[in-house]
Amino acid sequence: MIESAWVVNVGNELLIGRVVNTNASWLARRLTFLGVKVSRIIVVPDSVGDIAEVVGEGLKRVDLLVITGGLGPTPDDITCEAVSKALRRRWTLNQEAYQMVAEKYARRGYPMTPEREKMAYLPEGAIPIPNPVGTAPGVYLEHEGKIVVLLPGVPKEMESMWEEYVERLLAPRLPPRKFVERVIYVHGLPEADASPEISCVMRKYRTVYIKSHPKGHEVERPFIEVHVYASSEREEEAREVVERAVEELVERLKSKGGEVRL
Amino acid sequence: MIESAWVVNVGNELLIGRVVNTNASWLARRLTFLGVKVSRIIVVPDSVGDIAEVVGEGLKRVDLLVITGGLGPTPDDITCEAVSKALRRRWTLNQEAYQMVAEKYARRGYPMTPEREKMAYLPEGAIPIPNPVGTAPGVYLEHEGKIVVLLPGVPKEMESMWEEYVERLLAPRLPPRKFVERVIYVHGLPEADASPEISCVMRKYRTVYIKSHPKGHEVERPFIEVHVYASSEREEEAREVVERAVEELVERLKSKGGEVRL
Repeated sequence: MIESAWVVNVGNELLIGRVVNTNASWLARRLTFLGVKVSRIIVVPDSVGDIAEVVGEGLKRVDLLVITGGLGPTPDDITCEAVSKALRRRWTLNQEAYQMVAEKYARRGYPMTPEREKMAYLPEGAIPIPNPVGTAPGVYLEHEGKIVVLLPGVPKEMESMWEEYVERLLAPRLPPRKFVERVIYVHGLPEADASPEISCVMRKYRTVYIKSHPKGHEVERPFIEVHVYASSEREEEAREVVERAVEELVERLKSKGGEVRL
Repeated sequence: MIESAWVVNVGNELLIGRVVNTNASWLARRLTFLGVKVSRIIVVPDSVGDIAEVVGEGLKRVDLLVITGGLGPTPDDITCEAVSKALRRRWTLNQEAYQMVAEKYARRGYPMTPEREKMAYLPEGAIPIPNPVGTAPGVYLEHEGKIVVLLPGVPKEMESMWEEYVERLLAPRLPPRKFVERVIYVHGLPEADASPEISCVMRKYRTVYIKSHPKGHEVERPFIEVHVYASSEREEEAREVVERAVEELVERLKSKGGEVRL
């Protein structure tokens, strides 16, 4: 069972402070929500040695490693190579991943090149994860009872791959938890104005996850659908916290001029 | 000489994804600007064992450790205790720190309590760093040729202590660098509108640091002073990058309706 995790973020841009590491907090929140305890977040440079070292250390310490960044076509994208090294597996062309990459380019009329092919080189035995937003596939890998997940560093790609594929792959080994969801509909409030209220409620209720989906037109005819989720070992507890979060959120959205329908 | 650093951020709130780690990127940017290479950013839980372990490891690997969080009065603020343990120094009442803390409370008519006194318990031999914004003092410590700096986790406190004290303390041991600064004055543009343009230019020029100081009234009569700094081993290079950054920034601010005076 997956009880503990490290989040590892690869990228010099994080170590020179050019980019704020929102991937780490996003993943930490999701993992906490799933009942997994994150005990380290570690940012490492684009270096095979550094990545391999942290992966090796992490595999001794936790059940799950989630690694972001360094899966692209450029020479400094070396995460797959580094992970292969850490696991002592061959770094080799994965046919399924090759199909995913080749198809993306073919659709736009581009040929494959060595740089593009490189994105299909994965550690031997890896399961490639489709990338619905970008090009580079992710990786799901079981290794001596532990799990290693590699995702791109671009937040939109990382988030959609996590939500569409990774949580499903992890599901059979996650701690038993009950999930409760409620949807509320908000008219007349642009998402940009709802967003700080949502953040505020999420900060207050740690086991709650809130996601807004804009459905209308942001300015002329704003309409958003807001999903409020909570997880807990006991269903009653999850339900209770969702109710409290919804109540507070509705009040906040109304005070901002939103028309709320439950 | 200080050539390499780790940034260590202490706090469960970071590991459950409730807070985005902006302290890490802020410090990484400042350190890069000063010519120091950040090779790891590590987030650890509020646990004496975990903090002591990472501090011990870091001291073997880099010249400088900058640690944020866990300096406050509550029982889970245990960074000073953990660092004392890692350095095998006594964790003891520091008279100078005691004066700083006592004075803060006395000014508001509050007595000292054991919780407040705790903030003055530092590793033996530490130099306390005044906190102009909050209460808990920071720590500057030399240990077997390495330097350890502890700062609060509240961004405003951390940033002001870094700018007012830490950079000065580190200065004699920093790599030789030339710093160039230019100031531009912007009328008619609220700081909130200038800020995304500033971020954009900072993302583009890695060695440049830009800070805006609002001087007028944000809405009715906006006037901001913008300082553009760059650092480099060669003065000519720093000057050049400042010029290019200023040029691009001016264009961007004008396009947003700002009236710019150089």
